[in-house]
Amino acid sequence: MFEQLGLIGCGLMGGSFALALKRAGLVKRVVGYSKSPSTTERARQMGVIDVEAPSALLAVSGADIVLLAVPVAATEATLKAIRHLVNKDMLIMDVGSTKRDVVDAARRVLRDNVGSFVPCHPIAGKEASGVEHADPDLYTNRQVILTPLERTQVAQLGKAKDVWEGIGCQVLQMAPEAHDSAFAAVSHLPHLIAFALVNAIAAQPHGQDFLSLAGPGFRDFTRIAASEPKMWRDILLANKQELLEQTQFFQQTLQAMHSLIEAGNGEALEELIAQASQLRANWRMGARRA
Amino acid sequence: MFEQLGLIGCGLMGGSFALALKRAGLVKRVVGYSKSPSTTERARQMGVIDVEAPSALLAVSGADIVLLAVPVAATEATLKAIRHLVNKDMLIMDVGSTKRDVVDAARRVLRDNVGSFVPCHPIAGKEASGVEHADPDLYTNRQVILTPLERTQVAQLGKAKDVWEGIGCQVLQMAPEAHDSAFAAVSHLPHLIAFALVNAIAAQPHGQDFLSLAGPGFRDFTRIAASEPKMWRDILLANKQELLEQTQFFQQTLQAMHSLIEAGNGEALEELIAQASQLRANWRMGARRA
Repeated sequence: MFEQLGLIGCGLMGGSFALALKRAGLVKRVVGYSKSPSTTERARQMGVIDVEAPSALLAVSGADIVLLAVPVAATEATLKAIRHLVNKDMLIMDVGSTKRDVVDAARRVLRDNVGSFVPCHPIAGKEASGVEHADPDLYTNRQVILTPLERTQVAQLGKAKDVWEGIGCQVLQMAPEAHDSAFAAVSHLPHLIAFALVNAIAAQPHGQDFLSLAGPGFRDFTRIAASEPKMWRDILLANKQELLEQTQFFQQTLQAMHSLIEAGNGEALEELIAQASQLRANWRMGARRA
Repeated sequence: MFEQLGLIGCGLMGGSFALALKRAGLVKRVVGYSKSPSTTERARQMGVIDVEAPSALLAVSGADIVLLAVPVAATEATLKAIRHLVNKDMLIMDVGSTKRDVVDAARRVLRDNVGSFVPCHPIAGKEASGVEHADPDLYTNRQVILTPLERTQVAQLGKAKDVWEGIGCQVLQMAPEAHDSAFAAVSHLPHLIAFALVNAIAAQPHGQDFLSLAGPGFRDFTRIAASEPKMWRDILLANKQELLEQTQFFQQTLQAMHSLIEAGNGEALEELIAQASQLRANWRMGARRA
């Protein structure tokens, strides 16, 4: 049980975390700060936070647990803004979709107090952003990945594990590099593809007509294309190297299928489709390998 | 109201059509045929059809409405199998995802009786196939596209429109070529991409680990990758020309975003993401242009 959560960023991810902690009885008081004062105010009106802080630093004052729920590119500046109040007993976590850049920023900024920091990535989200979509169930039954640094304190790592499990998550631990490779493939690339597909269709002379005919397959395939632009710009750039490798490999795979279609090679084409179909039909979200 | 539906292909699409027609009181009796006798038997046991026919031809005998719900590549052979019992008073429809090849096959095979044929494409489906997933609501509130030939009889076109509206569809009409262009972009290409993405991830050394970490974005993005391989092999090949053009255009768009990421051009990247995000956020399934 924590006394006070300092919440920096009261949007979908941060707001949902605060609501989940409150519901689970894991925190007494939530002090929140958002860059936009109207967001902070709305969060208080909605009962997501109890007290509005006028700055990130003041949100941390008196907190024994701090969550950074800001776009990944804002992590370093946010850590700089709060570092004077960070101490070794605090638990500081983030929820960023990339981890190498966050770990590097924490190392640079927090220095001797970096042991308080546990980098986290909960595999949860919605295409809609903002505190008005905050939901105490956003993290329920989701995986959360912790990518501790060499200097992360065991006590803080244990507390982080407990708090995520306390709101219904399955906790995994891996190196930041392994995390970023995996999410380039299963998250960042699909987002990039979805953005590109929507733009490619819309750019055509009959694009709007095409879109008006699209059905449920298109609806689900492109759901993630509606994601928040600034947040995704930051993620795609932060994980640039891994993402570019994955994009290239995907393009080669697509091109190989393109060539089979061009050649009218039904047998080989069917084999590749069958492989994908079987893999996807047997896949279950959050199912760990044996 | 029809006397007898001759259903050729008692899978997801055909079975759902029979159930919907029965529920709406639009048909008295359903005679069904499937290539696999066990499918036909299951369809009868489930009450999807009333009578099992031992051949496609016998399924048509005595029918005043016939639905071909077979893979698009089987359309020509199916029409050949039934043509001796086709007459000018019948309404014959299909549910294929491509229309140019279906129209060509109908023209070649049905000749003087081609006026009975109304090519249809209901924009509905599930990634799961088979009669066990047949659902009387599959077509409810969905769009269905009719692509009549020059020689389609007005009376049959009217009947086709009535029967789809009778089971809750919104009926649109367009040329087969326009249909195939649109669906190359909004359906066939997304399927091809989903197949390629799943295969590209699985082919990597840590592919299975990557997949075990994937979340709800990946789940929805790749849902269509679990589609039926033979059916999709046929669709991708049948609409080859349009699909290859769309694939190429998509690859160029993806490559342009790839280059912006490589160059670290956050401003231009954000603009493209914002464009896609806004388009997708404002898109509604089945919303016609003003």
